[in-house]
Amino acid sequence: MARRTGRRPGNPDTRESILASARETFAEKGYDGASIRAIATGAGVDPALVHHYFGTKDKLFLAAMRAPLDPAELIDAAADGDRAEVGTRFVRLFLRIWDGPGGAAGVALLRSAVGAEWTTTLFREFVVTQILRRAVPKLGLGDEQGPLRITLAASQMVGIAMARYVIKVEPLASAPSEVIVAAVGPSVQRYLVGDLPGVFDQSEPSRVR
Amino acid sequence: MARRTGRRPGNPDTRESILASARETFAEKGYDGASIRAIATGAGVDPALVHHYFGTKDKLFLAAMRAPLDPAELIDAAADGDRAEVGTRFVRLFLRIWDGPGGAAGVALLRSAVGAEWTTTLFREFVVTQILRRAVPKLGLGDEQGPLRITLAASQMVGIAMARYVIKVEPLASAPSEVIVAAVGPSVQRYLVGDLPGVFDQSEPSRVR
Repeated sequence: MARRTGRRPGNPDTRESILASARETFAEKGYDGASIRAIATGAGVDPALVHHYFGTKDKLFLAAMRAPLDPAELIDAAADGDRAEVGTRFVRLFLRIWDGPGGAAGVALLRSAVGAEWTTTLFREFVVTQILRRAVPKLGLGDEQGPLRITLAASQMVGIAMARYVIKVEPLASAPSEVIVAAVGPSVQRYLVGDLPGVFDQSEPSRVR
Repeated sequence: MARRTGRRPGNPDTRESILASARETFAEKGYDGASIRAIATGAGVDPALVHHYFGTKDKLFLAAMRAPLDPAELIDAAADGDRAEVGTRFVRLFLRIWDGPGGAAGVALLRSAVGAEWTTTLFREFVVTQILRRAVPKLGLGDEQGPLRITLAASQMVGIAMARYVIKVEPLASAPSEVIVAAVGPSVQRYLVGDLPGVFDQSEPSRVR
């Protein structure tokens, strides 16, 4: 991992140095434990420069992960509207990203996520801080059921990403996206807001069927 | 990749040479196109030695993939019994393998599957020849609906493997396996033998709900 010394504004290498330091620091300390100051020190730059280049810590994290999109946008777009269709909207928006120009970045992200222990740790931090923390309140899920519901839904999304875009197994890989939406939407709907007997004994008050 | 010349029965390196040649040949030619003869030539051994060490081409393929189990056994065990519970049985048996001593091999298999283009090709061949071809007739699914149904179910299984055992995102990673069975079993059931409106216009005659 390249380490730079001295502040070199305007140098494109500086941006890469910050991202490399961010990846290392986020993987080592976790998202919450990684300070902009520590990331700046690792890159040999002033913390102000990190803010200048990347804005918030969230945005720096997304850039470090080379995320094809900000999950917050997907979550907001899917959460808006009829709750009876939230699973379908999630799957539809998810496929739109993967079927579009962001798909290649998504494949690269998944490939790197499972490539080594430290990149897996980074990906887990990504799921927890960028997806779980936002989706639980945004979908009005309680803290008791929300996290398991979201990770179940995420497991189905990751599985579709793996089977359709990484492994490319037929006929799933070439099926029209609306066929996948029709097949997978109801599962995601159930995980997010449906009855899950044997999983939760009682509904949380916020749950909408 | 190590290439050996000459037949050296009893040499443990010979076994590894055959497996290395098998991986390369299966990835390059596909399962159907890869002959035992070509694999033996690649390893510099006599074809009879390949049969002696590994038995059938199926068994050689499973050994080359370092598969934690023969999918045929999982499929047979899950397919036996009440059709209304086939999804639940699949998920339960799948989790039993991953939660057991085979889990580490499963994680290694998934990691290697997405590591490079050629290992991904190999994994796709594995899914098609060892899972699809067996599960479609074994579950009495028709050739028209069966392959998509099985790959949808596989997408959910792969997603659980990724989220629970590779990425290890909580609370999914530590949830009791029966909780996962209760949550995911009905999805797999629906993919395999349930109604899928918007996916298939008509049921196939062999389909059982």
